[in-house]
Amino acid sequence: MKKAWSEKEMLSLIAKTITVGNPLLETGIGDDCAVLRLPQRKRPLLLTTDILNEEIHFRREWISPFLLGYKSLAVNQSDIAAMGGHPLIFTVSLSLPKDVPENFLRDFYRGMDEAARRSGGALAGGDLSRSPHGICLSIAMIGEAWGARPILRSGARPGDLICVTGRLGLSAIGLHLLEQGCRLSPRAMGAKDVPARTRSQWIRSCLQAHLAPQPKMQVAEMLGRKGLPTAMMDISDGLSIDLARLCEASGVGAEIEFERIPGCPQPLLSEEEQEHCLLHGGEDYELLFTLPAAKASTVLKGLSETTGVEVTVIGTITSRTGGPSILRKGKRGPLPAKGFDHFTEV
Amino acid sequence: MKKAWSEKEMLSLIAKTITVGNPLLETGIGDDCAVLRLPQRKRPLLLTTDILNEEIHFRREWISPFLLGYKSLAVNQSDIAAMGGHPLIFTVSLSLPKDVPENFLRDFYRGMDEAARRSGGALAGGDLSRSPHGICLSIAMIGEAWGARPILRSGARPGDLICVTGRLGLSAIGLHLLEQGCRLSPRAMGAKDVPARTRSQWIRSCLQAHLAPQPKMQVAEMLGRKGLPTAMMDISDGLSIDLARLCEASGVGAEIEFERIPGCPQPLLSEEEQEHCLLHGGEDYELLFTLPAAKASTVLKGLSETTGVEVTVIGTITSRTGGPSILRKGKRGPLPAKGFDHFTEV
Repeated sequence: MKKAWSEKEMLSLIAKTITVGNPLLETGIGDDCAVLRLPQRKRPLLLTTDILNEEIHFRREWISPFLLGYKSLAVNQSDIAAMGGHPLIFTVSLSLPKDVPENFLRDFYRGMDEAARRSGGALAGGDLSRSPHGICLSIAMIGEAWGARPILRSGARPGDLICVTGRLGLSAIGLHLLEQGCRLSPRAMGAKDVPARTRSQWIRSCLQAHLAPQPKMQVAEMLGRKGLPTAMMDISDGLSIDLARLCEASGVGAEIEFERIPGCPQPLLSEEEQEHCLLHGGEDYELLFTLPAAKASTVLKGLSETTGVEVTVIGTITSRTGGPSILRKGKRGPLPAKGFDHFTEV
Repeated sequence: MKKAWSEKEMLSLIAKTITVGNPLLETGIGDDCAVLRLPQRKRPLLLTTDILNEEIHFRREWISPFLLGYKSLAVNQSDIAAMGGHPLIFTVSLSLPKDVPENFLRDFYRGMDEAARRSGGALAGGDLSRSPHGICLSIAMIGEAWGARPILRSGARPGDLICVTGRLGLSAIGLHLLEQGCRLSPRAMGAKDVPARTRSQWIRSCLQAHLAPQPKMQVAEMLGRKGLPTAMMDISDGLSIDLARLCEASGVGAEIEFERIPGCPQPLLSEEEQEHCLLHGGEDYELLFTLPAAKASTVLKGLSETTGVEVTVIGTITSRTGGPSILRKGKRGPLPAKGFDHFTEV
């Protein structure tokens, strides 16, 4: 585009241009998934899609065909998890250039099968074609909400606590490490996940977070079955931009505390870079959700006992709109939305 | 791929690699759509996807953004029609290079909206990203069968009559005409469709068939509601290859008659080229279906009266497998499958 449009402006233009609707479409553009409410079915269906382009989203020298298959399915599973749902089926559209080696296809689909085995979804079809340049692939996934009500971005209310699963910024640190020449051992994928303690374990965790993210399906199931969060989404473009999106969708504000945000405790980059990864780094695929304060402690205790996933309260929803703020060393200031936008950053 | 694999070999490799299934998936890889059978729902859901790459599937100098949006939705609507269904919702994944003009997005989605208005489906979301080279877009569409049973490729039985809607080869002739420098007037899209008679009207019909195909939604509705055809698919890669696929899926053979196949009566290319377009030309998006002989005349009369769409019987299903045969000037010979395969042809 000649003008540097933001993704948000483009989405708004698209929404204005389209006039045809469908009464079964309960939620359309703007959430992690579309919501399709079918008569006679208590639980709505969820539909999501993602497109990945070589050179933009991945480089073949950094990610094996197996992990590319794994990750491209995982990011869609994470979108379904973000609505409190689980995957049913998916399709894969794949455009391949001529220089793709013969074993690419087998390894790519093996990686996809591994992601399906871990987090759900059955391959239902797709489309294969030639690409004039790099690999281009797009996945579409149908899932189902665990409860009668999918968890949208738009239900957060002042006073709710803001929670995140796992640790943030690891994927962005992993990307920096790849740029610096670090590589993930092919055996790392099969290795049993142990909590990182040493520097080399944290390096592996960051590379894994970037190349083989683990969508939080169990957390999504527990939260989705009971409809507990008032709002939820996955952190795909970075905490600052994704929290701002949740706040905007809900018509609320947010106050978070820098010291509470769980990140990588090991200094692997410069302090400034590592802080940028924590607040603005994309592709963590952790869940960001809000809970009514009265229920929070019981829910969080149950979550950690049932799933073993670390969940941290990082702040509170407020009624003051205009973007989230952050408290740091006793000082409060705005949290600028510096996460990833394909059209203003590239 | 270094080895020139055919699409069929690639699909077979993929099917062998994937081990994870889902009991709700009634039909997976290999038909026009996947079939999802949900409990409590009489009519199954249909899921299809297509990927389109600039330089492979289209050229920007031949197709306007409006028509690109229109056509990319139409080919998915046609896949839903091919199962005897209608579209509900769809998602669009779109990767755009930097040189796309500012009005591209608006015109592209206007074209999509026009296709949705004509043949159904509501935009439910998608994904926007930067592309390093040309435009790459992928659509995923959920539809619903009109009847309790979707119409698969696999039900044709010996003795059934082989029918096609519309005329074949027009889209491939249209592509030749574009290569020769013919262009479709922007006003042609809005013009009322009148049966072509003159040479210039046939040129316009061929360009329209290629750039603005009209999926046969009404025919799909009538056939799908009553579950009349024993097998159905749309002709996207050419009559010869698509009929061979239908026969293989059904475990049957086919005998068609050259003189019965409805094509473009006006000589617009050399006789040889035009004949190649008729038998092997892709992207017609007409329906190919089989009917039990006893019911055929009533069904075809009803179809033509209700929908106004031309339907022609071009041959008969036989028990002799090993590929369709064709009768021409009193002589019968094999019909070689020369339709489009992305991986052996390019």
